[in-house]
Amino acid sequence: MPEFFNVLAPDAAFDALKPMLAMSVGVDVVATADALGRVTAEDIVSPEDLPAFARSTMDGYSVRSRDTFGASEGLPAYLDLVGEVPMGEAAHARLGIGQAAKAYTGGMLAQDADAVVQVERTQMLDDTAIEALRAVAPGENVVQVGEDVRKGDIILLKGSVIRPQDIGGILALGITGVAVSRKPRVGIISTGDELVPPGAAVGAGRIRDINTYTISALTAEAGGIAMPLALVADEFEAQRNAALKGLAACDILVFSAGSSVSSRDLTADVINSLGEPGVIVHGISIKPGKPTVIGLADDKPIFGLPGNPVSAMVVFDLLVRPAIYYLAGCKRIPAPPTTRAALRRDIPSVAGREDFIPVRLRQSDDGASVAEPVFGKSNLIYTLVRSDGIVKVPMDRSGLYAGELVDVRLY
Amino acid sequence: MPEFFNVLAPDAAFDALKPMLAMSVGVDVVATADALGRVTAEDIVSPEDLPAFARSTMDGYSVRSRDTFGASEGLPAYLDLVGEVPMGEAAHARLGIGQAAKAYTGGMLAQDADAVVQVERTQMLDDTAIEALRAVAPGENVVQVGEDVRKGDIILLKGSVIRPQDIGGILALGITGVAVSRKPRVGIISTGDELVPPGAAVGAGRIRDINTYTISALTAEAGGIAMPLALVADEFEAQRNAALKGLAACDILVFSAGSSVSSRDLTADVINSLGEPGVIVHGISIKPGKPTVIGLADDKPIFGLPGNPVSAMVVFDLLVRPAIYYLAGCKRIPAPPTTRAALRRDIPSVAGREDFIPVRLRQSDDGASVAEPVFGKSNLIYTLVRSDGIVKVPMDRSGLYAGELVDVRLY
Repeated sequence: MPEFFNVLAPDAAFDALKPMLAMSVGVDVVATADALGRVTAEDIVSPEDLPAFARSTMDGYSVRSRDTFGASEGLPAYLDLVGEVPMGEAAHARLGIGQAAKAYTGGMLAQDADAVVQVERTQMLDDTAIEALRAVAPGENVVQVGEDVRKGDIILLKGSVIRPQDIGGILALGITGVAVSRKPRVGIISTGDELVPPGAAVGAGRIRDINTYTISALTAEAGGIAMPLALVADEFEAQRNAALKGLAACDILVFSAGSSVSSRDLTADVINSLGEPGVIVHGISIKPGKPTVIGLADDKPIFGLPGNPVSAMVVFDLLVRPAIYYLAGCKRIPAPPTTRAALRRDIPSVAGREDFIPVRLRQSDDGASVAEPVFGKSNLIYTLVRSDGIVKVPMDRSGLYAGELVDVRLY
Repeated sequence: MPEFFNVLAPDAAFDALKPMLAMSVGVDVVATADALGRVTAEDIVSPEDLPAFARSTMDGYSVRSRDTFGASEGLPAYLDLVGEVPMGEAAHARLGIGQAAKAYTGGMLAQDADAVVQVERTQMLDDTAIEALRAVAPGENVVQVGEDVRKGDIILLKGSVIRPQDIGGILALGITGVAVSRKPRVGIISTGDELVPPGAAVGAGRIRDINTYTISALTAEAGGIAMPLALVADEFEAQRNAALKGLAACDILVFSAGSSVSSRDLTADVINSLGEPGVIVHGISIKPGKPTVIGLADDKPIFGLPGNPVSAMVVFDLLVRPAIYYLAGCKRIPAPPTTRAALRRDIPSVAGREDFIPVRLRQSDDGASVAEPVFGKSNLIYTLVRSDGIVKVPMDRSGLYAGELVDVRLY
């Protein structure tokens, strides 16, 4: 009885689905200040030049640069002081030949000034005159109009994940609202005759459902909205009904399968019953996580995640996380956080599949980062609680060696 | 006129403050399912063994292992089938000598069974008998009671940042609520005569306040609650009043200083007026970000961040981010996300200070990650918008070389 058909390489798994997915799940308009982590739904174009006026980058004196040419400590340029341009005010002072006006960092230059002499490079003679102790070139110590951004520039491409500095950049142009993708809704159905909700009494032979909650948290981290839908027994009709409701309300459907083989097979049957094309991938060449199911119905992706915690996290990263970003219109999926560390022990594996091993990170005596494999059973959640991340053994390797530098996916 | 006194090395800056800080800002009790990213306020101890019963890790037959000793393909062990233990049910079947009961992955073993023979290693003879084609050792294919966690084990230490798998681990034990630190409140005061709110009309010589919003977003990323307090001119009384209100309502106070030197000096004067000890550090040996002020009043940390965007982000990472985690009771501050890349160009610097240079990341033709320095002025926000992260030139280096592998702090 062959359990799996159409087993795909992990790299190919999400790609198999991608062409069938919608480009986006729709648009929200939100306050720019609240847009952290959201994905831009259109190119954002600058409505103006930034800065809008030439600004001094120093405290000092705005000058006509040619009046300082040749100036030095030994032969300073004498300049008449004709006032100042206070911070936050328009320049009323206008410079004639041989004149200067006090300037502040970030402030406007006097009219007809084209450079600023730093205060440390000047000598105050009296209230009406200074000496410039060195020459400045045109534009020196000045941020020019439009030097940061020009009117009409695309400042953020459609599909960008908005970061703190992007919020600053957008607001600097006076754009107080932005069109972003709606957050994809991820419906989660936990299946298995053995499961009870975490707050309920646990009868003999039963365990608490936890995958609903780890998957919800992973969904939130990826910018989706988790919608825990149901905890259902291994019963075709009950699962199908939960799934149909989920498909109507969500953009992505995730099954967390029960641990037995029959429970996993049932997930595939349910997915096939939801619409065309149904199951498109059944099995991925990874360990743990092989019995993963990928399907599609109503143009919505459906994932059957193996029930054990390590598999669920690995497969979430491989499939659900990219799907959330993709449906949010972000086509260049951000890399999850990683760090580099030296393996403390050999990790045996088998060529032809990717292996994922939880690791704990330690600092060695010389300060280097060391990854200690945690060889727990993948059906033990505390294997992950006691780990800092997961190391992948690539497809073409039959193991990794102690001392090797590896990328650790941090969780 | 020496602008700075007590200039500290960046490593020492937060450490100078730490002994004066409160250990925590108080406790919330939240639903475990909603605790992602929160910091545990006490050790969490397991109230029970996990799993609570011995579970099969395979679909197959639970057996008394000694009944299989010596079994092989050539000489199988004959076993009478006495029933099954359905998923999610207590074991009613009890094994006598030479008996077996059907077992499911994750299900309970029959009474008096101590191992499981995988279904693939058996042959069904008829409805009442099977042959085991290999021997199993005691405990084989079984997760023992308490193998994941034992009753009384500390499962998460006080001060841990709760991750998706931790939520799963806590809920697996039926703990549906957890004590976590209250999120530290970070009050933000933006100062400068030149600033207007992002939505307001921008008069000549004025610019929009953006640091309030980038600092708010960085605060949220670090697990704090941002409280934008005020946008105030460079006026001692106005700033002092805003700060006093902020101190009453917040756990941390952040000034984003105006860009001129006098504006920065004013911040220090205001901090000194708020209470003892006032300013404790004035200036850090970094570029950009040197004119940073660290103070303390009412036992609350106060930071004066330079107004330019690159400085504000660098100094936030150095001081405000650790302070948020520290006051949330997390003493081992999580490392921010980084990646390794090869520098594309030399970065010149000066020994004796740390330099921070924004970089853009690219993939080279051979797939390696390359960091291209973005040598924009640090007062241009788009220097950061166009960057993927920031590279540090360490204190003891006078620059970094093209081709060198560096850690990029991702933003």
